[in-house]
Amino acid sequence: MDYFTKNSLENLPTRHRVNLINTITGYKSANLIGTKSVDGQTNLALFNSVIHLGSNPALLGFVSRPLTVERHTYDNIKETSCFTINAVNQKMYKQAHHTSAKYPKSTSEFTETEFDEIYKDGFHAPYVDKSPIQIGCRLSNTYEIKENACLLITGMVEHIYVAEKLLTHDFWGKLDEEDIISIVGLDGYALPKIQDRLAYARPFESQKSILDGPQEK
Amino acid sequence: MDYFTKNSLENLPTRHRVNLINTITGYKSANLIGTKSVDGQTNLALFNSVIHLGSNPALLGFVSRPLTVERHTYDNIKETSCFTINAVNQKMYKQAHHTSAKYPKSTSEFTETEFDEIYKDGFHAPYVDKSPIQIGCRLSNTYEIKENACLLITGMVEHIYVAEKLLTHDFWGKLDEEDIISIVGLDGYALPKIQDRLAYARPFESQKSILDGPQEK
Repeated sequence: MDYFTKNSLENLPTRHRVNLINTITGYKSANLIGTKSVDGQTNLALFNSVIHLGSNPALLGFVSRPLTVERHTYDNIKETSCFTINAVNQKMYKQAHHTSAKYPKSTSEFTETEFDEIYKDGFHAPYVDKSPIQIGCRLSNTYEIKENACLLITGMVEHIYVAEKLLTHDFWGKLDEEDIISIVGLDGYALPKIQDRLAYARPFESQKSILDGPQEK
Repeated sequence: MDYFTKNSLENLPTRHRVNLINTITGYKSANLIGTKSVDGQTNLALFNSVIHLGSNPALLGFVSRPLTVERHTYDNIKETSCFTINAVNQKMYKQAHHTSAKYPKSTSEFTETEFDEIYKDGFHAPYVDKSPIQIGCRLSNTYEIKENACLLITGMVEHIYVAEKLLTHDFWGKLDEEDIISIVGLDGYALPKIQDRLAYARPFESQKSILDGPQEK
């Protein structure tokens, strides 16, 4: 195996270190976060760091890089408390990647990409039309990661829209039915295919598949 | 699309809400976290929440559920500051799932699964033999998520071992070369195939693939 120590990592060219550390944690989620400032300027940005934090109440989070440069998503959330999380599928990934280009705040990524903004049920922030999973969140907290000034931004889920064919009878999302994509590092895109779903694990019992069978209570 | 509000989520059966909220954020990483107590008891547990927090210094994190029940991984990390993160591939996922069975602390998941523990370069915590990516981390911080008492545990990367065929010339991990798996919700396993890798995005330029071509500086 290739071996890296703390020291050898520090001595790698920046781009190599960034690639390595961003890929070794495995596959990441691909989501577009939509926001709108108080004065109506929309923003759309691709994030690979959306995570589940709790189901009751439904709480999600994502990591924002330090505020040493302009962070339009963060600014809009601080102003309005609202953001949307929109799943990226195979048709969308190139345009989604393009939202990471450094446009000025006065230029909306909705204008510079093929994505259309839509508004639903009175929520302030725009959703991405045709995204198979659209989530409306309200800012809950901001945690500063002291080590490097990154922010973990948490949001309570207020609205969820899911493409109908995604959900099984027990509300489990078969993400591959809508070709939802996964991110590798900062710039790679992978298409997963669901292989299995396993029953709740119990000591000394072997693993049972429940992908096509009945769901355990 | 299926539509859920904050209210309708609260009224769902627990299992349905858990499935829905755990799957809508997209594909997650699949990693086994290995630890060992001061008195030598090892533990191995599957996590779907390992995230990248920074590359310089290399900082990773993962989410632990509240400490209302025994958390062997957390206890061992608090005692020793050491943990390992080990990628899960297709051959490993059933055994990896089984580590979530509730064994008492005195029973090691290394004993109850087919995984073998290995020790390298003087690091206290055990790695998972044959895992294609093995990372040795030292506890950096613990952040409490106030909303629900979950913990974000951060660790500085001290050692990385990567299967040789995974890394491209610019140290980007082609995760599918080792059939690394991705997690859907709490119990689904998906095998991704890398489709593309895109050049750094710039305003008003279209997206260029760099999957097989030269890497941009």
